[in-house]
Amino acid sequence: MAGDKKHRLAIIGSGNWGSAIARIAGGNVSKFGNLFETEVKMYVHEEEIKGRKLSEIINEEHENVKYLPGVKLPENVVATPSAVEAAEGADLLIFVLPHQFIEATCKELRGHIAKDARAISMIKGVEVKNGNIRIFADVIEEILGCRCAALSGANIANEVAEDKFSETTIGYRPNDLATAELFHKVFDTPQFKVGMVEDVAGVSLCGALKNVVAIAAGFTDGLGWGSNAKAAVMRIGLMEMKRFSEEFFQGVKPETFTETSAGIADLITTCFGGRNRKCAEAFVKTGKSFEVLEKELLNGQKLQGTETAREVHEFLKARGKVEEYPLFRSVFSIAYEGEGVKGLTSKL
Amino acid sequence: MAGDKKHRLAIIGSGNWGSAIARIAGGNVSKFGNLFETEVKMYVHEEEIKGRKLSEIINEEHENVKYLPGVKLPENVVATPSAVEAAEGADLLIFVLPHQFIEATCKELRGHIAKDARAISMIKGVEVKNGNIRIFADVIEEILGCRCAALSGANIANEVAEDKFSETTIGYRPNDLATAELFHKVFDTPQFKVGMVEDVAGVSLCGALKNVVAIAAGFTDGLGWGSNAKAAVMRIGLMEMKRFSEEFFQGVKPETFTETSAGIADLITTCFGGRNRKCAEAFVKTGKSFEVLEKELLNGQKLQGTETAREVHEFLKARGKVEEYPLFRSVFSIAYEGEGVKGLTSKL
Repeated sequence: MAGDKKHRLAIIGSGNWGSAIARIAGGNVSKFGNLFETEVKMYVHEEEIKGRKLSEIINEEHENVKYLPGVKLPENVVATPSAVEAAEGADLLIFVLPHQFIEATCKELRGHIAKDARAISMIKGVEVKNGNIRIFADVIEEILGCRCAALSGANIANEVAEDKFSETTIGYRPNDLATAELFHKVFDTPQFKVGMVEDVAGVSLCGALKNVVAIAAGFTDGLGWGSNAKAAVMRIGLMEMKRFSEEFFQGVKPETFTETSAGIADLITTCFGGRNRKCAEAFVKTGKSFEVLEKELLNGQKLQGTETAREVHEFLKARGKVEEYPLFRSVFSIAYEGEGVKGLTSKL
Repeated sequence: MAGDKKHRLAIIGSGNWGSAIARIAGGNVSKFGNLFETEVKMYVHEEEIKGRKLSEIINEEHENVKYLPGVKLPENVVATPSAVEAAEGADLLIFVLPHQFIEATCKELRGHIAKDARAISMIKGVEVKNGNIRIFADVIEEILGCRCAALSGANIANEVAEDKFSETTIGYRPNDLATAELFHKVFDTPQFKVGMVEDVAGVSLCGALKNVVAIAAGFTDGLGWGSNAKAAVMRIGLMEMKRFSEEFFQGVKPETFTETSAGIADLITTCFGGRNRKCAEAFVKTGKSFEVLEKELLNGQKLQGTETAREVHEFLKARGKVEEYPLFRSVFSIAYEGEGVKGLTSKL
């Protein structure tokens, strides 16, 4: 990219979180007009809302009426039903899609992105394939051939959209603070404070593994074990998250887990609110299986925490390391092997 | 102490926490009969309960009916109304008194403790005198001339007394793991897991400074700012606790704050339960001053969080460092200087 050329942003995704982030990014590119092109294209997976196209509603009413109703988007955010059109000419790509669409969307974009493009992944979760766990920033980087950072934090989308105070964390690639600083300008506001850490894997893994810990925290709630036990399980879970990531991923920094919004802060919000905690509490109180609870409470959607617990378990089992992560193990055994929930802390 | 001589325990204090700890320690000394004398003397500040002496009730009914009703104490825990008698012949002293009685009690004990005695402080809070902040383990060490460790953690006394799962942390003096391991034997059970860290000051400061952060967390609850903001304030508070302790106390370890039960876990319990959080929420919702709330909600007792915020503020002011701890500063300004609570995060 030539020194004076302005950066052009594209947002690939427009759900609840994507729309909240589009609101902030749209505002900031206008604020830093010397750095960024004003127009921000946003890829919208097209759907019909009462006979109208969602992309058209967004462009006419500046509101994502389906996924972030009641919140106005800046007028410089322009929706398009084509991911390729959204990315065309952009050198800063923000991926904020449900994880099952990442691979296909990246393949569609291949060959259509700027040579000097850089990406950031806001996708929670990890990809598990052939016994390996991969973070989505690596998936994006591999398919598109461009550097990819990650953003995660204690960020309930509706609260961010309402301008309630929040923090978040950008994880960047080794020696690539420059990219993080650019994305910092895209996202940072007085009410949405962005920290930076040289650790893409750590930031991404926090967002996935916290859900396993939230299942354990929900179990303690269901059992009525009180505050000491819940805090202990959260602490032990955080230590297992950190140790797991340090053991199996290169360049992971311990402080990503213990000091950043992506780590400890997001763990706190997830263990006190959120569906994982809630379903785990219901699992104990009702005696129903997670499969049944997913149908009853989540319209059949898979619960991330139990899914990740299973994936992590298979990963560890293949490497003979199950015993070294007793909390992860207990969550798996209770959710999938019929182990009694009262044994949650017996191996800690 | 000669190699084969058994250790003798004394518990100096018998409130809610002291009684919960006496129950565990009494059980463990019986379990490790080769290491410890079975009898454990417990100093009880004498008072009359329905015409009977509390120490006598404890020795006859094996229950502290006033401070831990409904929980049986082991019969080898023997109450005495004399601190000197309790400590006589003991080489392991457990201090678990309200902080205002520490100095006087230690002075009373001076000259009456074993030459090879070692102590552990379970006292929350810090001593502030002549513009200096001291931890109580140092106060005890100075007055009695014996080494003093510290114990703190996410330990609501009643939950510990009911054998609900908990963790705690022993902070020990440099190169004195041996003392920590001895106290580990006194306290560790499958339901009360004891960690150890070479950091007496860090463990002690966690127990004091967390209350300042809980005030800030309670403000966010009162303001209805949501989970992101509360988690952010807790994270920022934890970082200020760590930085403050590292700056002003020797040998403090960062992981005491970010990885132990005394640090992050106790912060979580305090920011979601407890009187500091509750009063701070009421401060926002009712518009009443903390002075009035202390009268109405705490029978006139001082709230620890606001007290510590004031002490920390005076300490920092004397050193020209107020601006470096913006969250501590905001809590002080809101509680004592009439600053609007909505400005809580404006300087973060």
